[in-house]
Amino acid sequence: MTETDTEIQTEEDVNARHAEKMRKKKAARDKIMATKTIEKGLTIVHTGKGKGKSTAGFGMVFRSLGHGHRVGVVQFVKGRLDTGETHALERFADLVTVKRMGEGFTWETQDRQRDIAAAQEAWDAAKEMITSGDYRMVLCDELNIVLRYDYLDIAEVVAFLKDEKPEDVHVVITGRNAKDELIEVADLVTEMEQVKHPFRSGVKPQAGVEY
Amino acid sequence: MTETDTEIQTEEDVNARHAEKMRKKKAARDKIMATKTIEKGLTIVHTGKGKGKSTAGFGMVFRSLGHGHRVGVVQFVKGRLDTGETHALERFADLVTVKRMGEGFTWETQDRQRDIAAAQEAWDAAKEMITSGDYRMVLCDELNIVLRYDYLDIAEVVAFLKDEKPEDVHVVITGRNAKDELIEVADLVTEMEQVKHPFRSGVKPQAGVEY
Repeated sequence: MTETDTEIQTEEDVNARHAEKMRKKKAARDKIMATKTIEKGLTIVHTGKGKGKSTAGFGMVFRSLGHGHRVGVVQFVKGRLDTGETHALERFADLVTVKRMGEGFTWETQDRQRDIAAAQEAWDAAKEMITSGDYRMVLCDELNIVLRYDYLDIAEVVAFLKDEKPEDVHVVITGRNAKDELIEVADLVTEMEQVKHPFRSGVKPQAGVEY
Repeated sequence: MTETDTEIQTEEDVNARHAEKMRKKKAARDKIMATKTIEKGLTIVHTGKGKGKSTAGFGMVFRSLGHGHRVGVVQFVKGRLDTGETHALERFADLVTVKRMGEGFTWETQDRQRDIAAAQEAWDAAKEMITSGDYRMVLCDELNIVLRYDYLDIAEVVAFLKDEKPEDVHVVITGRNAKDELIEVADLVTEMEQVKHPFRSGVKPQAGVEY
């Protein structure tokens, strides 16, 4: 056997072992996935201090719109930069309803009573969308922020998600500092953790990235 | 002073203290943001075991498209369920170029040599898009997966991002197990951490949520 043959065989061995390993992996995965048979509307929470909470929320909205589903969006904090999403959603005007309800971030308005009223109004709009039967998915963008400031009663929100949310509607809730009670009632929770952020190097918010 | 007056004053006090606190918060924030003046194309990484990595990547793509920017998407792993995004992107056919390059998830194909060739081909396509001058943002979806299996040389990818990526292009890279060398060179890194997942309760992948 020449040296070249040995090398070739070694490479083939690697490939064969790899194929065998992947066959087993696929078999195990297929077996697990076969047990996943339940279809139901989920309560999905994106929280944490990292970027990507609202971005992934809107990513789900666009994905759902891609399937031709009708989607509702309620924005609980108006101050958030969002021109990119707004214009992108305009191309789905046949499927999406967007309600910008928040009167601005609390440190922008500095008016607690107005913020409480705005939060309640936004929550009423969200509940109406969720129970209407018109939407497959409703995004409650930055709902966690108003819950954190106790502008809305967390017990009321949890009771609604548990008892009144229709079985077939996905509700996506974003914002840092998600309350424990909400995490408890949710089906799918992801924490976006900040590993590295460009603001630290003096980079400003940029179109496409932050808004 | 009647009891009612006291109550009203207390509520007013709360509101006044809140307004003062928020004024200070806003002033501090405005001061910090005024120092963020640099505009540059970022290398952005979404990694971790939780959901939302590709979803937030596509969320950035849609946001960028909303601004009227041209965007490129290279998919390194074809097997990923993606019908929702595909159909949603069809509404932006004037602005987006999508290249589905991966020959399928490695445990689906079980052919290491073919996967390596596919990874290299996808990376060549990504480099061409990034350096072409045609795109403001390029999403390298699931690039981390092929780097993890060493189907692509991490040193080559890092050197390209450092020395050849044009200053004004955002590159978004998704996939779990991001290599340390990539995190080192990136400007913005978010780790999506899984807190709760519905598969554990037997719920199957659903349209709008997983694909």
